[in-house]
Amino acid sequence: MSEFDVKDHPHRRYNPLTGDWVLVSPHRAKRPWQGQVEAPETADIPHYDSSCFLCPGNKRITGDINPAYSKPYVFTNDFAALHQDTPAASRDDDGLFVLKSERGTSRVVCYSPDHSLTMPELSDEQLTAVIQEWIQQYRELSQHYNWVQVFENKGAINGCSNPHPHGQIWASSSVPTLPTRTDAAQQQYLAQHGKNLLLTYVERELADGARTVVQNEHWLVVVPYWASWPFETLLLPKAHVTRMEELSASQQAALADILKQITIRYDNLFQCVFPYSMGWHVAPYTQQYQDAAARAHWQLHCHFYPPLLRSATVKKFMVGYEMMAETQRDMTPEQAAERLRQQSPIHYKSAQK
Amino acid sequence: MSEFDVKDHPHRRYNPLTGDWVLVSPHRAKRPWQGQVEAPETADIPHYDSSCFLCPGNKRITGDINPAYSKPYVFTNDFAALHQDTPAASRDDDGLFVLKSERGTSRVVCYSPDHSLTMPELSDEQLTAVIQEWIQQYRELSQHYNWVQVFENKGAINGCSNPHPHGQIWASSSVPTLPTRTDAAQQQYLAQHGKNLLLTYVERELADGARTVVQNEHWLVVVPYWASWPFETLLLPKAHVTRMEELSASQQAALADILKQITIRYDNLFQCVFPYSMGWHVAPYTQQYQDAAARAHWQLHCHFYPPLLRSATVKKFMVGYEMMAETQRDMTPEQAAERLRQQSPIHYKSAQK
Ligand SMILES: O=P(O)(O)O[C@H]1O[C@H](CO)[C@@H](O)[C@H](O)[C@H]1O
Ligand SMILES: O=P(O)(O)O[C@H]1O[C@H](CO)[C@@H](O)[C@H](O)[C@H]1O
Repeated sequence: MSEFDVKDHPHRRYNPLTGDWVLVSPHRAKRPWQGQVEAPETADIPHYDSSCFLCPGNKRITGDINPAYSKPYVFTNDFAALHQDTPAASRDDDGLFVLKSERGTSRVVCYSPDHSLTMPELSDEQLTAVIQEWIQQYRELSQHYNWVQVFENKGAINGCSNPHPHGQIWASSSVPTLPTRTDAAQQQYLAQHGKNLLLTYVERELADGARTVVQNEHWLVVVPYWASWPFETLLLPKAHVTRMEELSASQQAALADILKQITIRYDNLFQCVFPYSMGWHVAPYTQQYQDAAARAHWQLHCHFYPPLLRSATVKKFMVGYEMMAETQRDMTPEQAAERLRQQSPIHYKSAQK
Repeated sequence: MSEFDVKDHPHRRYNPLTGDWVLVSPHRAKRPWQGQVEAPETADIPHYDSSCFLCPGNKRITGDINPAYSKPYVFTNDFAALHQDTPAASRDDDGLFVLKSERGTSRVVCYSPDHSLTMPELSDEQLTAVIQEWIQQYRELSQHYNWVQVFENKGAINGCSNPHPHGQIWASSSVPTLPTRTDAAQQQYLAQHGKNLLLTYVERELADGARTVVQNEHWLVVVPYWASWPFETLLLPKAHVTRMEELSASQQAALADILKQITIRYDNLFQCVFPYSMGWHVAPYTQQYQDAAARAHWQLHCHFYPPLLRSATVKKFMVGYEMMAETQRDMTPEQAAERLRQQSPIHYKSAQK
């Protein structure tokens, strides 16, 4: 029997945040693809589009008119998944028919008035304004809700229905399934190891480097050891931070820098507007976590889950086996990190000019 | 404050098999869709395609020639995600870098020699042959592996790279993440309630009917109370069955019938070859479950996870919020069940003839 080779042999890796395993089949990257081909997002789009629901001054589907905004613009989603005034209700029949009504809100965050500028193309100033808007939203929504989910769906292939660069914020009374799981995992890790899970992870990754994509004074981006999506990354502060409101001015500036660095490399990888879902996880705003000491197990982090696998037109399908058994990936996280790390720090569009 | 109305107000439902919650936002079905439009699968395909890797007598990418098969044909995937001879290895650094090598195999199951006949179009005899092949595969693979995952990815939109009707079987030494979770949930339910989770669920659904799509003497198909995908269904035997090998001849015949009934209604819903991922969960083949009494908590079941939401061209995207927080759906399971139940039992293609 030969020796085990991580770059060649099927293996499973454990995600300490969720308790899930992922099946890694590095040799599968060699298989030819005869399935669905996606439309790549490479077209130039205009700075203003009169038919866009998000551009300044335009009319939305509800008839509301967007203001002539110049900074990030936030409004309540016209088809919000959550409402603040939902009547209370609950049911539990034998643990099989369990229902609870849910209160919350869904907001849209337009990053800038420019219809064409995606995250890697925003100026440092514009990116810092987005970060400050997120912080403001966390401050406000945490007064009313226990969970505030900041996220972005980017690219039509990824379910984004409007190319105007924007993210969303859904806040809810309940802490949803996934953050409940990662909260418990971080708590258990601290109890068992006496150390903060993700802070320890940052230290190890900084010492190793095999999975590092980019870093600056305050932030690190790695393809996590347990990545599910081919080019998934995890963005982490180097210091202990449990919520975005705790970031100092220099951590905020460095965050704008690192967001630009990672998204430029994403776009450069396949020379397209690289689609992804991005989202922040912060310590929940439940009563029990009001004291900073009570949330010592938490570390703020941001996930990027991009669907592309081989090119701008071939994505990874998380289907049959992934839905029924567990996630499977076709290359190692180290291989993905190396490819992202090799990308130029200059956006391909400005390099072409 | 108004009364809570399940058809109108946002609420969460609990999945007792996984411990996940799903956010239900029934009012969201009204929102207009301006995002990606898929290519519908409505074209007629030939009975034989000389360029197909799966048709009888054709050459595969490896150079192997398929036999002139007339019944279901099974072979090892040319780019298998799992191999039977992977060397052993494991690593655990502080619970953060945890890896285990994995042994297994991946097989392809061509349902019939006919390139054009999808599941709802197979004859009862052909469908029974598929079921008997699955049983044979479970018998054989359970000698070597603890988990045998039978599944099908149907439709290009769903990552299927060859339209020739086929499923897959991936077997592994480890029990994967999801069945590990549902195994524990079923065990805990039995311990706590003194009843089998899914058998109790079947009884309740039979008495209610609001989520029933189709049924026959031995089987029931419901849109589960906790469904994630818009038209997700759960196929369950009415009697206690822990593995497919336990099915009697009449349960097998009735399974062929119910598979046809549900897939015909799926195709009729949007008048297309309805894409989905389908997969079976059976009691694991671990040593501890060799005695039937030890797996009393288990109930055999089959999931259908179809991606379409509004039409043959508009799917549900499980993206940002779903990936970061929890699954969200845009209509109630009861509404989905009613629409499926209303479909004709005659396949739209034969009705057109
Ligand atoms: O059928 P294939 O070509 O093996 O591959 C398909 O099913 C696999 C198992 O669900 C997935 O991992 C792939 O992403 C998907 O494209
Ligand atoms: O509200 P949007 O952006 O139109 O909708 C998009 O994001 C939502 C939140 O992730 C998803 O539930 C939808 O399936 C997706 O199309």
